[in-house]
Amino acid sequence: MQITNLKNVPKAKADMAGAKDTYKQIPISKADGSSVFSFRVFTIAPGGHTPFHEHPFEHLNYVINGQGAIVAEDHSEHSIEKGDFALVGSNEKHQYKNLSDDEDLVLICGVEKEYE
Amino acid sequence: MQITNLKNVPKAKADMAGAKDTYKQIPISKADGSSVFSFRVFTIAPGGHTPFHEHPFEHLNYVINGQGAIVAEDHSEHSIEKGDFALVGSNEKHQYKNLSDDEDLVLICGVEKEYE
Repeated sequence: MQITNLKNVPKAKADMAGAKDTYKQIPISKADGSSVFSFRVFTIAPGGHTPFHEHPFEHLNYVINGQGAIVAEDHSEHSIEKGDFALVGSNEKHQYKNLSDDEDLVLICGVEKEYE
Repeated sequence: MQITNLKNVPKAKADMAGAKDTYKQIPISKADGSSVFSFRVFTIAPGGHTPFHEHPFEHLNYVINGQGAIVAEDHSEHSIEKGDFALVGSNEKHQYKNLSDDEDLVLICGVEKEYE
């Protein structure tokens, strides 16, 4: 068993082309012995966003804090806020955006361990 | 893409022998099209607990609210609180307990979709 508080997980600027003011932490991954899935946490500062991109694996999200949107394939924006769960399908184009003026958007982004 | 707030996810008493004052919600599962993993949420009332049990699949946890402990195979109690992530391995005996007098323990419990 392993227990880690998010405060103690190293945080680094997300290394993704097209990301703005986005930081990544990896609380649980195969490096910890997870055999199926990884939990990453993205912190997106006000005005920031992840890339508008797609990939062959799905995302399971939980919004820990803040307000924002997920941009869908057709460019429509779907609001997300603290307490929301989201499922973004494999090969579905998407982007996470912070829409708050003053609060970080913090969300769990679960992916198959092969991808992180 | 699917977005659901936890407030809108049906909650039912957990149907597990040995559980006390424990409620389950299933925000994301194969029923929603998830192909790998499911996110359940357990709410354990003050004094409540899940069974002390084991099973052939791991848990990935995030503590949304409250204070409690995960009981390990050797019966040692490991504190958990809001903001903690935990990995409980496959076939590792474990139990989640609420140790607060007045606050619900609310945690995400991710498992392979085959198991939920």
